[in-house]
Amino acid sequence: MADKKSITPRQQDYSRWYNEVVQRAEMADYSPVKGTMVIRPYGYTLWENIRDALDRRFKATGHVNAYFPLFIPMSFLEKEAEHVEGFSPELAVVTHAGGKELEEPLVVRPTSETIIGYMYSQWVRSYRDLPILINQWANVVRWEMRTRLFLRTSEFLWQEGHTVHATKEEAIAETLRILDVYADFAINEAAIPVIKGVKSERERFAGAVDSYTIEAMMGNGWALQSGTSHFLGQNFAKAFDIKYLDRDNKLQYGWTTSWGVSTRMVGAIIMAHGDDNGLRLPPRLAPIQVVIVPIWRKAADGKIVLAEANKIVNRLQQAGVRVKLDDRDQYQPGYKFNEWELRGVPLRIELGPRDIAARKVMLSRRDRPGRANKLQIDIDGLAVTVQRLLVDIQAAMLADATRFRDEHTTTVASYDEFKERLANEGGFIRVHWAGNRDDEARIKEETKATIRCFPLETPEGAGRCFYTGRKTDRVAIFARAY
Amino acid sequence: MADKKSITPRQQDYSRWYNEVVQRAEMADYSPVKGTMVIRPYGYTLWENIRDALDRRFKATGHVNAYFPLFIPMSFLEKEAEHVEGFSPELAVVTHAGGKELEEPLVVRPTSETIIGYMYSQWVRSYRDLPILINQWANVVRWEMRTRLFLRTSEFLWQEGHTVHATKEEAIAETLRILDVYADFAINEAAIPVIKGVKSERERFAGAVDSYTIEAMMGNGWALQSGTSHFLGQNFAKAFDIKYLDRDNKLQYGWTTSWGVSTRMVGAIIMAHGDDNGLRLPPRLAPIQVVIVPIWRKAADGKIVLAEANKIVNRLQQAGVRVKLDDRDQYQPGYKFNEWELRGVPLRIELGPRDIAARKVMLSRRDRPGRANKLQIDIDGLAVTVQRLLVDIQAAMLADATRFRDEHTTTVASYDEFKERLANEGGFIRVHWAGNRDDEARIKEETKATIRCFPLETPEGAGRCFYTGRKTDRVAIFARAY
Repeated sequence: MADKKSITPRQQDYSRWYNEVVQRAEMADYSPVKGTMVIRPYGYTLWENIRDALDRRFKATGHVNAYFPLFIPMSFLEKEAEHVEGFSPELAVVTHAGGKELEEPLVVRPTSETIIGYMYSQWVRSYRDLPILINQWANVVRWEMRTRLFLRTSEFLWQEGHTVHATKEEAIAETLRILDVYADFAINEAAIPVIKGVKSERERFAGAVDSYTIEAMMGNGWALQSGTSHFLGQNFAKAFDIKYLDRDNKLQYGWTTSWGVSTRMVGAIIMAHGDDNGLRLPPRLAPIQVVIVPIWRKAADGKIVLAEANKIVNRLQQAGVRVKLDDRDQYQPGYKFNEWELRGVPLRIELGPRDIAARKVMLSRRDRPGRANKLQIDIDGLAVTVQRLLVDIQAAMLADATRFRDEHTTTVASYDEFKERLANEGGFIRVHWAGNRDDEARIKEETKATIRCFPLETPEGAGRCFYTGRKTDRVAIFARAY
Repeated sequence: MADKKSITPRQQDYSRWYNEVVQRAEMADYSPVKGTMVIRPYGYTLWENIRDALDRRFKATGHVNAYFPLFIPMSFLEKEAEHVEGFSPELAVVTHAGGKELEEPLVVRPTSETIIGYMYSQWVRSYRDLPILINQWANVVRWEMRTRLFLRTSEFLWQEGHTVHATKEEAIAETLRILDVYADFAINEAAIPVIKGVKSERERFAGAVDSYTIEAMMGNGWALQSGTSHFLGQNFAKAFDIKYLDRDNKLQYGWTTSWGVSTRMVGAIIMAHGDDNGLRLPPRLAPIQVVIVPIWRKAADGKIVLAEANKIVNRLQQAGVRVKLDDRDQYQPGYKFNEWELRGVPLRIELGPRDIAARKVMLSRRDRPGRANKLQIDIDGLAVTVQRLLVDIQAAMLADATRFRDEHTTTVASYDEFKERLANEGGFIRVHWAGNRDDEARIKEETKATIRCFPLETPEGAGRCFYTGRKTDRVAIFARAY
């Protein structure tokens, strides 16, 4: 529960601010198993809302859900050389089961391209079986040494889509369609203005031909990769023998994609929107959109206030608003205000005997704090006002986050300027880029910044690479990243 | 896909019938990892509908969802003596992770009382924190030697509720409330007339004081335990130190419950309703409620028929009906009829040029097969007719299953009669029971039948135990079981 202690300000220690907010808002807790976390009901409800908003979009674009096994034979991972190289340092391995040592160790899935690839090779026979458009909601395990709640844990929840197509063009179109779905979700549900782009070779998914990403800016100017969509070419089709007979009765390899969004997205929402008072949740995803805090001193007033508050709850619920009445009697209103601010509820309604007499309530927006911004609103017609305000708050949060991102995005002309910028303001640095893999590695070593992506939209046109001085069309966004 | 081969009749080999139906209806497939399965999109959509129908009920009774880690330290399981004894033969163990041997092996959760109990001990401080009413949707692993798709696999999906209460009475009330939720779900969504009862000591959950169950009858007269709700007393509270300060500021142990329904429920639906032509799915849970099969010979007719079919699809979708138009051109209508029958779609619409001219369609109910039962229905007002028929089919399926169960439930007066009944008709045998644990074990050894439950409703009153001859109030249901 929220206590009186104030939260560490972001400027003072961003990382500590994050951990305090996550735990005190009861989003998540550390678990006794090193590197894993418990997602508490408030955090899980946010994840359910994320899941539903994504799932609706997947189904609307023709995808269906299925479920594949948690355990993958070690030999499966070894079939795709880059894939096993990328994942083997992070694997958790089951060696014993049912009281015996297993003949072949089983890997706890870090991602499911291999086991799903194997099943697809059983199911695909003819071009008529294609495309296969399957998604899975599941837990995955990647053993991590340095963990952080939601951002990097040994176990996390995610969705992983895996598709097979008859042609390269269709597979690339699918990869980009999903990237659009992710960006649409991030912008319109999470109010996070993500940038769509391609990953550099260094940051590409192990086994992919091309990895696409949506990159978000956090409150400290760092980047967070918030979703990825991979064009896998025929790499996995060849490793797992996914073949089909085409219209001319010739055997062809399929073309595959995979794509995922995880519980990391919860971390993105916390860090893209949170302030020194705690969370600020976008109304479309917030577990509680409106909290009602009743205020009274005399017991007789209490009855009247609670009766009116319950009427308002009913009216808002009927209007499809997720509302909570905080009728706990052991806490003062001021304590409750702080707690619901910490928990990021977009709208607060205060209701006292005098308000009721005047048929009014006081409304406070989480995104526009302070007494001066409070609104006095008629109780009659309240549901419509609330619905309208939630839409306004959603839009205002996206506008705030977009302004913040743009203010913290700069361009530089030289590597010296680049280093100075990173040491001071940080943020996203958009540059022309003609370097290679080694150049990128050297920059990372010297500045800790990496290429987040080559953005799909590059109004800059051609220019000179800030590092090599070579002329190029290519634009990169560099940043420190989680 | 459905092929021309007919399915093995149930009478000939029930177990083979089951496996063929599951695979040919594309509900599930064997995976390359021994004992695990792949839930294919059609089976998974059924599971999603089960999940949503249960989740609605959990939330309506005040529960929230959360997520706890997959891995549990071995030492946690050992804290509750009966619990570890019950589960240790079935554990899968992670011994290596991140390239190193772990200091303490991690168990892949077979159920989560222990890890959740540990977290509750951190979260519960005062009576004001109670009750805790949390549910988790998750995968669990119990290493099984003899597996069967959906019924018994090494990994399965389920929900597990875990609650803490201040008093024994509240915990028992919760256990029974959930049993009611499960029965309500089974009867009204899955159309399966389950019997609510208590488990015998032998069949009790490892670590429980009392285990309650819903027992369903399958098409071969065997029983399937379809959901369980456990009153755990203070066993886990004491093992994990879940304590709270009561109103008088005294430290008390909490009282806990746990309860679960798994993907086994899919198996229950298949076996409670299926016939020799395949699945019969209850409309409320069916992934596809209505399939439209267009019929034509001339290409010009095809256009007209498909245009009308699409109009019907739109109208049914607007009415909230899950409808599919089977417009594949490589298959004949007869082939499609067989396939959708195999897949258990409750209602089929046939539509040809002559039907359209007469503004009629032909409707076939999956639960009332045969030409004689076909209905000719006006296209205008079709949506309302379809909605009404789906309600009728749901009710008819429950009535059919109830009649079947009642016809296959008998009473016997002696152990000889009991053995004879089991050898011939099988089914549920309701008897008075005053035996002990050893008696039950002996009966199981001799007949393979076990006490499925002591039903909560026992209109029989007192009588003599068929086995010991002693007088008793207690009634037991014996049956062969999965």
